[in-house]
Amino acid sequence: MLHAIDLLGVIAFSISGVLVALSKRMDLFGILIIAFVTATGGGTMRDILIGATPVFWMINPEYVYLILIGTIFATFFRKKIDYLRTSLFLFDTIGIGLYTIIGIEKGLSAGLSTPICIALGTITACFGGVIRDILCNEIPVIFRREIYATACIMGGIAFFVLKSLPIDEDYVLLGSGILVIVIRLIAVRFTISLPSLYRNEDDDELNL
Amino acid sequence: MLHAIDLLGVIAFSISGVLVALSKRMDLFGILIIAFVTATGGGTMRDILIGATPVFWMINPEYVYLILIGTIFATFFRKKIDYLRTSLFLFDTIGIGLYTIIGIEKGLSAGLSTPICIALGTITACFGGVIRDILCNEIPVIFRREIYATACIMGGIAFFVLKSLPIDEDYVLLGSGILVIVIRLIAVRFTISLPSLYRNEDDDELNL
Amino acid sequence: MLHAIDLLGVIAFSISGVLVALSKRMDLFGILIIAFVTATGGGTMRDILIGATPVFWMINPEYVYLILIGTIFATFFRKKIDYLRTSLFLFDTIGIGLYTIIGIEKGLSAGLSTPICIALGTITACFGGVIRDILCNEIPVIFRREIYATACIMGGIAFFVLKSLPIDEDYVLLGSGILVIVIRLIAVRFTISLPSLYRNEDDDELNL
Repeated sequence: MLHAIDLLGVIAFSISGVLVALSKRMDLFGILIIAFVTATGGGTMRDILIGATPVFWMINPEYVYLILIGTIFATFFRKKIDYLRTSLFLFDTIGIGLYTIIGIEKGLSAGLSTPICIALGTITACFGGVIRDILCNEIPVIFRREIYATACIMGGIAFFVLKSLPIDEDYVLLGSGILVIVIRLIAVRFTISLPSLYRNEDDDELNL
Repeated sequence: MLHAIDLLGVIAFSISGVLVALSKRMDLFGILIIAFVTATGGGTMRDILIGATPVFWMINPEYVYLILIGTIFATFFRKKIDYLRTSLFLFDTIGIGLYTIIGIEKGLSAGLSTPICIALGTITACFGGVIRDILCNEIPVIFRREIYATACIMGGIAFFVLKSLPIDEDYVLLGSGILVIVIRLIAVRFTISLPSLYRNEDDDELNL
Repeated sequence: MLHAIDLLGVIAFSISGVLVALSKRMDLFGILIIAFVTATGGGTMRDILIGATPVFWMINPEYVYLILIGTIFATFFRKKIDYLRTSLFLFDTIGIGLYTIIGIEKGLSAGLSTPICIALGTITACFGGVIRDILCNEIPVIFRREIYATACIMGGIAFFVLKSLPIDEDYVLLGSGILVIVIRLIAVRFTISLPSLYRNEDDDELNL
């Protein structure tokens, strides 16, 4: 079950990479690389930081095949992909909920402290998109818009709160993962975002 | 003593990250991440390159708390921060002196050769700023302006010269660290910088 | 023999880094760093991903000296370097052939699967240029132009096809390395490139 969601997440992340790469007039190789880093960049950064090498996709090559399939599919049907936007958004949102939990679990098994585990979960969920945006020469979108990382951090906090209660491990995973998803859905539905705090003296309505 | 300087350096680096992030209209999460990579990016790169994982801030979470405090402080007082510019510059300069020495010491304990240890010291001191600038979609400022990395390299050379002399280890650390600080202070005071060597045939006054 | 080609490749990669850095008006330190990451970035990324740390140039400081020499040479003769463009292109092309093979061999000795070894070979050959372009605030050129990574991937596939045949190990290395070089030479000679697949409805001649 978890694994099936993981695989759907990988495909959703790859397709989001393909869409960004297409808008940058990249060639087929560029598209494939952007799809790959979008889907695996967060987990790769996590594994490098904790020293879990070779990184996860080197040991489980099924990720590579899935990303290939996602990329070919999205490239071939690129004119029709707009019809899939809602499904893709859902997969992507489920993906970050799951990736957050996977990152936290990896941090716990490396013996790291609570705040570091929450950071690892957030890195796993968000840094694929950050690396995608750097490679495409953009300021990473999650630094400027949307409750995205914030949802992961809140889910991470929920994980440790639930874990301290006398409830089953499975419900801890499920509850905190679903919280990430719900926060993100609510934020996007009601276009809630963090304040930008732009420091311009003439522009005071943007400031807190 | 060294530890107190380290902590001041972390705070100064965080605040410099906050100031850059604010000028890019980032949201609170973006500001926090930029502050974090500015303060820890150099040491993280050093630890990844030598394989000292989990990287330093995962094992010492006090860095995470300090950066949080520095970020909240700088965000809250962002309109007043200009009054602190001189103090921040001093902390930052003391920080790179100290980070250079920490990087060299880590290289030595990993059994690496002299030039590689100097490179590691320079990476520790400078790469936080490089990653900050990449995330903010700028060409890293240290590639274009100011004696910054050059001060670290000279301090690193001084470290190994002093170390070969029959003097106390403490004076080696102190002398080379202070040299980094003095070179940077002199360079900024007299606006000395490296030549840019721009290769434009019509623009010969810029060339060597 | 292989080692001599490796060293020529390092010098060619450094000089290509210097030329890009000069066009960005970087100072001497910036030029040196760009030369360094262009020459070593691919191998460094490979070593980090598989956990072969400290990374290769920390253990073999001769790379550092070679890059220093290449950088000083190219900076000093920067107005004359255009006469060397053909030789540089040849060294660079031989370099990617060799780097592809080195990356594959490293992957095999880390016990990784065939597709991952091909990916590692391609990363070794191509990511120096990718990091160079990110540091110079450009979308990486290999994502948009030329058969470059494609040549590495094809050489990697050839490596494993040849390896499965009853022929000598040396011919496997030589054959697949030369294939990378030949594909790249043909692609550049006849200006063949991958389609860009730009997704603009008004611009259909660019689409497949």
